[in-house]
Amino acid sequence: MPTSYAILGSGALGAFYGALLHHAGREVHFLLHSDYHHVRAHGLRVETTLGDRSIAKPHVYERASDMPRCDVVLIALKSTQNHLLPELLPHVMRTSGGVALLMQNGLGLEDDVAKIVGPDRVIGGLAFLCSNKVGPGHIVQLQYGHVKLGEWAADHQPRGVTDRLTALAADFRAAGVTVDIEPDLLLARWKKLVWNVPYNGMCVVMNTTTDRLMNTPSTRRLCEELMWEVVAAAASTGRTIEPAFVQHMLEHTDNMVPYLPSMRLDFDAGRPMELQAIYGNPIRTAAASGVKLPRMQMLYDQLTFLDRRPR
Amino acid sequence: MPTSYAILGSGALGAFYGALLHHAGREVHFLLHSDYHHVRAHGLRVETTLGDRSIAKPHVYERASDMPRCDVVLIALKSTQNHLLPELLPHVMRTSGGVALLMQNGLGLEDDVAKIVGPDRVIGGLAFLCSNKVGPGHIVQLQYGHVKLGEWAADHQPRGVTDRLTALAADFRAAGVTVDIEPDLLLARWKKLVWNVPYNGMCVVMNTTTDRLMNTPSTRRLCEELMWEVVAAAASTGRTIEPAFVQHMLEHTDNMVPYLPSMRLDFDAGRPMELQAIYGNPIRTAAASGVKLPRMQMLYDQLTFLDRRPR
Repeated sequence: MPTSYAILGSGALGAFYGALLHHAGREVHFLLHSDYHHVRAHGLRVETTLGDRSIAKPHVYERASDMPRCDVVLIALKSTQNHLLPELLPHVMRTSGGVALLMQNGLGLEDDVAKIVGPDRVIGGLAFLCSNKVGPGHIVQLQYGHVKLGEWAADHQPRGVTDRLTALAADFRAAGVTVDIEPDLLLARWKKLVWNVPYNGMCVVMNTTTDRLMNTPSTRRLCEELMWEVVAAAASTGRTIEPAFVQHMLEHTDNMVPYLPSMRLDFDAGRPMELQAIYGNPIRTAAASGVKLPRMQMLYDQLTFLDRRPR
Repeated sequence: MPTSYAILGSGALGAFYGALLHHAGREVHFLLHSDYHHVRAHGLRVETTLGDRSIAKPHVYERASDMPRCDVVLIALKSTQNHLLPELLPHVMRTSGGVALLMQNGLGLEDDVAKIVGPDRVIGGLAFLCSNKVGPGHIVQLQYGHVKLGEWAADHQPRGVTDRLTALAADFRAAGVTVDIEPDLLLARWKKLVWNVPYNGMCVVMNTTTDRLMNTPSTRRLCEELMWEVVAAAASTGRTIEPAFVQHMLEHTDNMVPYLPSMRLDFDAGRPMELQAIYGNPIRTAAASGVKLPRMQMLYDQLTFLDRRPR
């Protein structure tokens, strides 16, 4: 029997990976919210760099309680919606052997999922994806798409490579996705934050794009200083990020096209920003070891102010 | 003979004090730029909380080289215009006994004036004034107006109370202005920065007013942390600001009407912001003693980015 997937949050990320897995012969069930009736009538339209991956008659659901229990529950909601997970997850995860695959940015989100499904049933996923929802049930992936997968552990220590991680990676690879298996999930999460911490927040507070931050000496230096604070925060949990990685992220950003990070898109659209996952949890994690991150804290404070806007 | 005053920068501050001094019988000469022809034709209109202080036929000049040399040169330009002072000051200051009274916010500006006029001819003034230019040659003072005056010294040590300071204070008092004589100018400048550093920059970066900063817990705490960095910077120059003063500034701001600081007005009008005086010079002063101010530096970096906008 093929692996079955429940996709919670069928937006730019969830519908993209779900559609790829569907076309690779996996059984995929999509939970939808605002787009449910549209997708039920017209299908999912998924344009990717690998070709068209649309699904004319996807398995779609408006309520988690209507979904079958699946082997893998792909959590692809905005993390600001994670308060819904205690209601959703118990309906959709296979009672024995099912796993939750959390594909969201930031730190500490798996801990909350583990409280719902148990500590041995959580895998973390990092998506390096440029994909947009351009209309109801209509996803366009523009670039990238590779993922990193790693086992989560309650003590946050590296869990290495497990059989189920290898099997999960094989499913994604069969769907055309490049996969790195991460023996140390927490290190991978910190490394992704090296980019997300400076550029997501600064593009919101400065109302600008990555290229303009990089082309102005004062903000370029500030972005680098924020990266070093993430490196210090990672070290507070025993993870070493090499200085060359910071330089690599700066050069990578120099070479990107002018880019609006997801937090800026959320802010511009009047949606809540993923502040806890990207700022609050990392800051509190470092503070627990006595490590202060004054610039990250200040950016977090400024974003918290902006997040309170009336919507 | 009455004291003669040259007012460099006849805007909301310069025209206000100049008009008060004129009505107190001092000889006042106004340097104007964009409003010259209007004021020459229609006079200066100065509405104050003390009553009308307009001047039908003020002594106005378009060029400093046309002005008489005066006993006191009141420097009331925006400090972003101080690069003009080497050209202006030599024309207007009495050769013997004349003094420059620098009434601008921030740190280190007197040092530049001393290089032009000599180290023993500089007095610092701090204006606590809510006044607006509402049209050409038309000033409306809404609130406050008291000043602090202190002798500047090349070694930045307290110079105490001098005869000329007492005489200057007497002129302002005769004009209806409340005056404090400050034996320690540098301490007074740091104390004013305790307010100016958080609220000027934060109202620009957050695009808001003081009351909203204070009513949001994250930015209220950030403003307080910025105040403590100013206290640390003052300590790096041997000046002690008591903790009660920080609390007083917070409470004072809580009780203010929603307020747009001058930097926000400058930014909104597309004018350059006074970043060096309020951020750059204090940061460099503290750094010279090895004291780092990460939040002030970050705010300065963000403001520098915004100051580069095309105008």
